[in-house]
Formats: sequence, C-alpha cells, structure tokens
Amino acid sequence: MAAAEVADDVLDHDPTMRRLEERVADLLGLDAALWVPTASMGNVIALCAHLERGDEFLAPAGAHVLSDELGAPAWLAGGMPHPLPTPITEDAVRAAAGGTRPYFDLRTTLLCLENTHNASGGTVTAPDRHARLVAAARAAGLRVHLDGARLWNASVRLDVPPAALTVGVDTAQVCLSKGLGAPVGSVVAGTTEFVTRARRLRKMLGGGVRQGGVLAAAGIVALQRIPDLAVDHENARLLADGLVERGWRVTPPETNIVRAEVPDAAATLESLARAGVLASPSGTGIRFVTHRDVSTVDIRTVLERIGATVAT
Amino acid sequence: MAAAEVADDVLDHDPTMRRLEERVADLLGLDAALWVPTASMGNVIALCAHLERGDEFLAPAGAHVLSDELGAPAWLAGGMPHPLPTPITEDAVRAAAGGTRPYFDLRTTLLCLENTHNASGGTVTAPDRHARLVAAARAAGLRVHLDGARLWNASVRLDVPPAALTVGVDTAQVCLSKGLGAPVGSVVAGTTEFVTRARRLRKMLGGGVRQGGVLAAAGIVALQRIPDLAVDHENARLLADGLVERGWRVTPPETNIVRAEVPDAAATLESLARAGVLASPSGTGIRFVTHRDVSTVDIRTVLERIGATVAT
Amino acid sequence: MAAAEVADDVLDHDPTMRRLEERVADLLGLDAALWVPTASMGNVIALCAHLERGDEFLAPAGAHVLSDELGAPAWLAGGMPHPLPTPITEDAVRAAAGGTRPYFDLRTTLLCLENTHNASGGTVTAPDRHARLVAAARAAGLRVHLDGARLWNASVRLDVPPAALTVGVDTAQVCLSKGLGAPVGSVVAGTTEFVTRARRLRKMLGGGVRQGGVLAAAGIVALQRIPDLAVDHENARLLADGLVERGWRVTPPETNIVRAEVPDAAATLESLARAGVLASPSGTGIRFVTHRDVSTVDIRTVLERIGATVAT
Amino acid sequence: MAAAEVADDVLDHDPTMRRLEERVADLLGLDAALWVPTASMGNVIALCAHLERGDEFLAPAGAHVLSDELGAPAWLAGGMPHPLPTPITEDAVRAAAGGTRPYFDLRTTLLCLENTHNASGGTVTAPDRHARLVAAARAAGLRVHLDGARLWNASVRLDVPPAALTVGVDTAQVCLSKGLGAPVGSVVAGTTEFVTRARRLRKMLGGGVRQGGVLAAAGIVALQRIPDLAVDHENARLLADGLVERGWRVTPPETNIVRAEVPDAAATLESLARAGVLASPSGTGIRFVTHRDVSTVDIRTVLERIGATVAT
Repeated sequence: MAAAEVADDVLDHDPTMRRLEERVADLLGLDAALWVPTASMGNVIALCAHLERGDEFLAPAGAHVLSDELGAPAWLAGGMPHPLPTPITEDAVRAAAGGTRPYFDLRTTLLCLENTHNASGGTVTAPDRHARLVAAARAAGLRVHLDGARLWNASVRLDVPPAALTVGVDTAQVCLSKGLGAPVGSVVAGTTEFVTRARRLRKMLGGGVRQGGVLAAAGIVALQRIPDLAVDHENARLLADGLVERGWRVTPPETNIVRAEVPDAAATLESLARAGVLASPSGTGIRFVTHRDVSTVDIRTVLERIGATVAT
Repeated sequence: MAAAEVADDVLDHDPTMRRLEERVADLLGLDAALWVPTASMGNVIALCAHLERGDEFLAPAGAHVLSDELGAPAWLAGGMPHPLPTPITEDAVRAAAGGTRPYFDLRTTLLCLENTHNASGGTVTAPDRHARLVAAARAAGLRVHLDGARLWNASVRLDVPPAALTVGVDTAQVCLSKGLGAPVGSVVAGTTEFVTRARRLRKMLGGGVRQGGVLAAAGIVALQRIPDLAVDHENARLLADGLVERGWRVTPPETNIVRAEVPDAAATLESLARAGVLASPSGTGIRFVTHRDVSTVDIRTVLERIGATVAT
Repeated sequence: MAAAEVADDVLDHDPTMRRLEERVADLLGLDAALWVPTASMGNVIALCAHLERGDEFLAPAGAHVLSDELGAPAWLAGGMPHPLPTPITEDAVRAAAGGTRPYFDLRTTLLCLENTHNASGGTVTAPDRHARLVAAARAAGLRVHLDGARLWNASVRLDVPPAALTVGVDTAQVCLSKGLGAPVGSVVAGTTEFVTRARRLRKMLGGGVRQGGVLAAAGIVALQRIPDLAVDHENARLLADGLVERGWRVTPPETNIVRAEVPDAAATLESLARAGVLASPSGTGIRFVTHRDVSTVDIRTVLERIGATVAT
Repeated sequence: MAAAEVADDVLDHDPTMRRLEERVADLLGLDAALWVPTASMGNVIALCAHLERGDEFLAPAGAHVLSDELGAPAWLAGGMPHPLPTPITEDAVRAAAGGTRPYFDLRTTLLCLENTHNASGGTVTAPDRHARLVAAARAAGLRVHLDGARLWNASVRLDVPPAALTVGVDTAQVCLSKGLGAPVGSVVAGTTEFVTRARRLRKMLGGGVRQGGVLAAAGIVALQRIPDLAVDHENARLLADGLVERGWRVTPPETNIVRAEVPDAAATLESLARAGVLASPSGTGIRFVTHRDVSTVDIRTVLERIGATVAT
C-alpha cells in the first residue's frame, strides 16, 4: 500500500486500480471491472444498472441483497424483491418470472444469485447447477447478477476457476475484504458498457475515490491469498466436528461458515462473548466464520472455551 | 355531477370534495380524508407517509400493493416488501417484525392489511381477527395501513359498520369505483397531519385536480350504494353454485369475487370471451367479479353460455 | 359524459379514451397520446421517460416544472433542474448544455419548453423561435419536452395549428382543463414507444383510471372549444386596458393572463378578494386569468369593483 | 495504517474510527461525527437527512453539491436545487426562502454553504459573514449544511479554529483527502441523532467499511497536517504572482487554488500538460491546486516551464 503508484481514479487513470480491475475481470472471465468500497455498493450499482423503476427481481430468501443492505435495493434501485425458497430451483425461477400483460403485471427482469450463500451457511453452487439456473433465467427473459462476495470460497472448495462460476452472468460482484483480508474494497464486473455506467453510479453514490491505488494495492495482495482459503475451510470443519462432539446441532460446513441451531441465540452469543468467542446471529441460529486471522490453534482454543463454559 | 358545486381543490376548498372527504372520514372513524384518483395512488401515498428510505413493510402474499401496482411501493416509497403467507397470522407478523440491530437489520415499520383480500377471492377479515392483527403489529412497533379498496364489501358481508374494520389503523384507503360504480376516485384517510402530508404527495404524484367537485359528486352518490353490494354478493353465490353444478372447482365466494381453479387459465379465458363472458386471471386460476352492472338475469345468461360452450 | 361508451382503460381499451387520445395526437402532429389526470402528471411522466438518475434538464426560470410541481422532477424523475433566464435564447441553451467529461460533468439531456409561459404572463413562443430553440437543443444533444398546458392559447393567438408549435419535440403535454374547461384531464404525447412506457408510469403514479370514457368525453367536448379561447384573450385585453386606465402597472397580455406589478401583492389580493375578485400571486406581482366562465360583462364588473375599492 | 487497532465498524466499534470521529467532532464543535469514503457521500447523507421528497435547497452557484456530484442531490435526496448568485448574501437567502402556501409553493428547507468555495477559486467565508448567513437562514426557517471539504484551508487562512466556521450549522462535512493528503475519507458531523441516521444511510449507500481503522489511521495523521496548509497557500501566491508577471489574468488566491481566465481553456490545458503541468478546467477558466506533494521548488519549475512553452 505504501509503495502503490497512484493517480486520480475519479478522472479515470489510477494505474494500480487499473491493474486490480483488469486482474479481477480476467479471473471472472468478464470484460471489465470496477473497484467499489463495499460489496453492498457493488450489488446496488448492478441492481441500478439492471432495474427500471419498479422492476421485480428474484433472489434466494436470506440473500444479502434482501436481508443485509437495509433496503437499498428498493430505495436506490427502485426494485421489488421476490424471494425464492432456498436452495432455488429452475422451476421456481420459471414460475416467478411472471406475467406479460404490460399494464398489469410486474416486470420481472433480474435473477440475483449468491455463491457461496451466506445465510444458508456458506453453501456452494457448483458449475452445472449454476449453468442450469442461468439458463432458466435467460429462457424467461431475465438478466443475471451474481453476488459473489464469497465466490473465492466456492472456487477453492469446488476446485474450479472463479470464471467457471460466472458463466452466463451479466454482472458479478466479488469482495476483497472478508476472507481475503483486504482492509476495504470489492469489485463489480460486467461488460465495458456496464462498467462505464457503473463508474458514474459509483461517483453519485459517493464511492469514487481519487488516489485509490493505495487501496487497490491491498486488493492485489488479497487476490494472491485465494488458495489459502482452503485453510479456513479446514478450520471450519474442525470447529464443526468439535461442536458436534460437544452435542451441538451444526450444519456440516461447505466453506468457512459454521451455522449452529441453538435454543436461544441471544443467550448463546452472550455466553460465547464472555468466553472470548465472537459469533453472530444468522436466521434463528448463530454463525461462526473462519478467516485468515483465525488459526488452527485458535480453533482448538475456541472449542476448549466452549466446552468449559457454554451450554447449548 | 353536472350540478356539483365546485372550487379549486388544489388550493384546498372545493366544497363538494370537502363533503365527500368528511363523509368518508366519518364512515371510517378516522380524523380526515383525501380524495385521490385511484386506489393505487391512495396506497402509495400512505406508504410514502409511513416508510423511510429502505424500510421493510409486511403484506399478505398477493396483496394489491405487492402484485398489482407495478412496483410503485419500491420506486416511490422506497419500501422493501416482505410477503407473509395468507391468511396472515399474528405469529407471522411477530416473527417478521424483525431485528433491532440498528446498522444491520432492516427496519420493519409497517403492516399492510387488505380487506377484502382480492387475490384470495374477496375474502373478509372479521373485526376480531382484524383487531388481533393490529394488536400484534402495534406490539411489534409497526404502523398499520389498511387497503380497503373493497372494505365496503366486507362491511356488508359481515353486517358491521366500516369503522368496525378500521379499528387501530393509522391509515386506510377505500375505493369509490369498483363495486360502488363511481367513474373514478378513491379516498385515503388518517390523522389530520397525515392528510396534510398526503395532499402535498398527491400534488407531486399528479393527482391534485382542481374543480374536483364534478368527480366528488359521483363519489357521494356511490357511497349511497353501499347496501346494494349485498345483491352483488348474492349474484356471486348464484354464479358459484351454478359453476359447481357444472363441475367447476370453485372457492365458495365470501363477497363479489368468484375464483375458480382451471387446468389452463388462458384457454378458459379465451373460451369465455368467445361466449361473451369476461373474466380475468387470478394467480393460477381465474376470477369472476359481480358488480352493479351485472344483474341476476345476467348471471343466468352467463351460466347458460358457459354450460353450452366452455369445458373446464 | 353520461352517454360515454366505456371499457377498462388500465387494460388498454376504453373506446372513448382512445378517441380522445387519437384526436390529441393528430392535433399535435405526434404519433400517440395518453390521457392523464393532471398536467403535472403529464410533465413528470415525460421527465421520468427522458431523464436517467441525476440527469440535468434545462427550463426557463419560473417554469411550471421548476416552481409549481412541489419538487416532483427531483423526487420522481431524479432530475437536476438548471433554470435559464426567460425568455430563453439559443445561446443560453448552448452554453448550459454542458460538459462531456463522463465521470465529472453532469449529463444534460433535456430542454423543457413552456408555451404559453405561465410565469411570464401567458407569453407565446412563435413557430420560428420555437424551431430555433429546438434546433439549438438538438445540436447540443438534448431531447425536448414541451409543457403545452396552455398550447391552445398560443395556437389561437398566433393563428397557427397546434402542430406548428410542437415541431421537433420528443414529447408534449397539453391540458384539457384550465381554459378549455374540462373538469379533469391532460394528455401527454410522443412516440408510440414513449406512450407504452408512459402508460406503465401512469399506473405506477396512480393515474390509471378504468372506465375513463366518462372523463374522456369531457375532454373531447373541451377540444371543440379551442377557437373560443379568442374570447378569453379579448377579455384579458379589456381587463388590462381598464387596469392601465386606473393607473395599474400591467404587462400587455398576449393571451388570457394579465400580470400586474403591485407594491404589496398580499394586500392587493386581499382587497380584491373583499371586492369579490379572485386573483393569484405570480412572482412578485399578481395574476388575473380569463376563462370560459368569465364573460365580457364580468370583466366590466371587475373593473368597476376595482375602481371603487382597490388602490394599487 | 499498518499498526492501526481495528474492529468491525459496521457493527459500530472500530476503535481507530472512533478516535478519528471524536477528534473531528471536537475540531468542528459538533456533537458527533461519522467517517465516509468521500466528500460526496458526506454531502449526500446530509442532504438525505435534511430534505423530504421534493424539498428545495439553496446553494451558491457552482457549489460542489450542484455541479460536481452528477446529480446525486436530486436522485438520492429528492431535492430541488435553487442556485444563488455567488458570493451569496443574506438578502438572497431571505428572498429565495420562499412561499408558505402549503399545496402550492415548494418547501425550501435547507441552505448549503461551502467554505472555502471551490468554484470561486478557494475563497474563504469569515466567521462574521458565516454567522450572518446562518442567521438569515435560521430566520427563514432553513436548516444549514456546510460543505467544508476545504474548511481546513479557510481555518488556516483566517487563523481561526475550524469550530469558528461551523457556528450554528446543523451538519458539516470535512475532507481528509485533498489538501490533507489522506488516501481516502471524509467526515460528516452533526447531532448524535443525525449521526445515528447517517450511519444507516452510509450502509445503504455502500460506504460502511468494516476494519476501517486502517483508513481512519491515515485520517488521524492527516489532521495533524492542518497547520502545514499555510505552505500550500504561500505556494499558491507564488504561482499566482509568477503567472501575473507572465501576463496571465489570475484571481489573487485566498487559499490553495489559483484560477486563471484564458481565451481557450482546453488549448491551454493541453499546452500545460505537454509541459508536464497538470491543471483542470474551472467554469470558463482553468484551475491550479497546490497541495502537500507540490513544493516551492516545484512552483518555480512550473513557472519556468509555463514561461518557456505556454502562451495564454
């Protein structure tokens, strides 16, 4: 970061930003990409670009765009969400894609996918299922946006390149923070024309930084860490196994998220916090996340502390 | 209409409008009321008044605000809809009312009720159930808007005054068109302060007419027709019985809407149209509506024509 | 109105509405037209269709879209207004049309004209000046919307068909109320594709009436009255002459609006009202409007009452 | 930055962010403050908090909120801008503050000040003039937002504490980037209640970073550099004097911005760029900005190169 070459990125020529954006576009197999401060901004820019006033969009229940962006899709993109049961199916996409009476039916124009799916516990969508969902959406006249904030985890878990998981999408958003550990930043990608629009939307939303190379440099380093996510996944499995041994009801983790159903989430989180273990609520349960600052030794410590102090 | 006393209603003093608005406020047991051109504008004004940017609102699946307003609640009111299974329950309201983590959870601030509920086939909500739902919403910190476009039908069917069905709501919208037969117009009602805001929102949305007395006069006449809705309900029952005799799968009508499940809605609607019977799609089935221009004799004619020509 | 043939206009086939809309499209020399409840809704629909988020639009200072729609252009259309000095000039349009740096300059995409121009006292724009302004806008890459709420007055005053005053515009809005005396209604016109979008926007805004023929019938009658506007213009001249004789500072009226500068507008309006003469504020002065319910005899009465009681 | 203590700032407890925000609130004499990625986001959050749908706001012509945010105030805050001639006067504020007819006049609710004023060439507003403008706004019922992206420059130039320039405002935004040299970040400040709302708006707009301490650390360092801005001002004077000696028409700089009127801005900027001197367009002229990476030696180099190669 300290050594990053910089220029003015609002005026469109910070060289380190350029390098980062080209690298991500390549990884995703898309034409162009744009750095944004947060995954939320990447998603909302894509929704703004895809949705006209009042358009309906489909997304899996619990998706980040539905539950974790404080309603920005409605306010900013003017979109009416239509939640589909998770995991979503081709039939559900077809059934929801809706009517064609022009002055009567909502215009359904977009399917939002999320891979991995955070609210379901970091579950992955494999390339073939991804392709079938995209095909169903296309056949129904929908565009497709992929919230890939955790796409790197899916790629590592499935042992396929990220671009295998973006086939057929119009836009995708990937995060440099979260598991990859950059202090700030996501990237939204699509066609060159989309990125031109996205750049203006980013400035309007207040996300257009100038000497962005300082931040982009961290993103470039973060991308190098993708293979290391396998360690986070292994640690999540260790944690899950340990919790099951201690009698917890745990969904077997597919990536770096461990979901547990507990009788009283608030009470359990409080007990955990007293034991020095930070977790967060997730639906009716709780959620543990492993990342680069959580080592295998840390997992053992967590299990010891939970065993000693936390009843479920 | 021809004899209506008029003035400029945008400047706030058309006398016939005033009479109509006062009459409706009285009928609904609310403080004040405002004429609007359509039920949709009444609903969206209420949503704009109740919702801040991105706020979540609850409504029964298939509600008019969700399915029949082309996404205006998202675009205009900035609201994120959260559909509840119909018929909605107190538990569902409580469960959906959601979180309290200020920078994390959506702010759920409004419950939209609909009585009668069009998409369910004109089903009524009785005063006690209404009161329990309102109480659950209040306890969860929610405001309540009632889409009462067909409230007059519920009132007649239940044999209670309209005000018995608005107890505890913040705002309500009732329609003068539809069953009551005015050529245009709905009324949205609430506190005096709400109506002051609503009047500005109406002008911004383009619904502030000037010599509105001409239209209000039709509304005043329409209100006198409320008791006659019983005839529409009786006609709906006649139609439903006749359809059942002919082997149709029909939901027993509670008011003036007859819903039928058919194997192929588009094909059935086409056959009906060829027989001179106009119906419309409703979910996976079709919907017949009785109103002041459909007589008992008409119902018999419809049944004869269906019997002769339409197979289900 | 009582005899109007009707059907459901939201579902797109009220026959009287169709007749009205086709008649107005013909008069304006545009492809298609759509009835809307108010001039404000016609304008805001056009702005929504022309402007993307944050786009800048040019309009003469005091234009209805700037000063009389409670900010709907910003809220609903997301447009940044740029007022030009009145009467606007080709140079002003060129200078304001703005920059081309894509991530830095506002996108200026629309010129709104207003003919007659209400705030300037009902002043007319002749076909040649109209054509030059449109040409300047086109050369600068702008679309053109004409707020022609009072276009009929300009047409009568200039003795040219209305279509001579819409040459080159993308969209135009004309009012059936105001001088023409219909109880409600305006029409917005443009290409067929625009009207298709406009119909959806109208429904979202809450302006889509169903048995609209009752209202359209009044519009059809109103259009027949266009030639009679000459009487209103003559009455306005009579009033202006009389006021000048009584020592008032009056702008010579071009159509049916008489603007007078007075030392204290509020006090003068109050004196007038006590004398039974209703006028309204207009900028720093006041405004009298003649219309079909104001006869030449009425004008004499007004002048007598003013002479007897109102000092300027 | 590398050593910053961090936590999750969306969940509200990154300690370094807290330190930065408290430090800025103290400097500005306001209750509370919130880090945002850009000055634009700080401004638009303040506008969203102050403006209801369609509200009018006053700002000096050429203000950043009018000309440099791509229309975000209209799209995001729904505000109708009303530009006032610069430098703005108390009379202009009073005259524009507008009408009180509730269903007719725009609601004017906010005055936006900008100190220093970028488009006027970095001109400062002294405490007494600031206080009079705020008093005029208050008397007219307006709130006041101060765009203080360059407030530090005004403070240094006037030799008064920043808090002397925020007296009476509701909200203020100050930038850590620009002259102070942080790679990213601004701060928006006001009451505690405002900051609570601002935090949600920031997340909706996509500006809520998590381990923000890394960025906040740079902001804390930047604040220590405020006194050094005097060097930038001295360098601007040197540059202006040199340009005047070379026959340029230059506005005497008050802070770190040197505006020059040139016959052909585009051609001059191109000549400058060829000589290795980067400037930018500003209205009809061009603009040089001095900052921490431009030394007194650099200024001499610039003047030499301009003397040798650029004709005005």
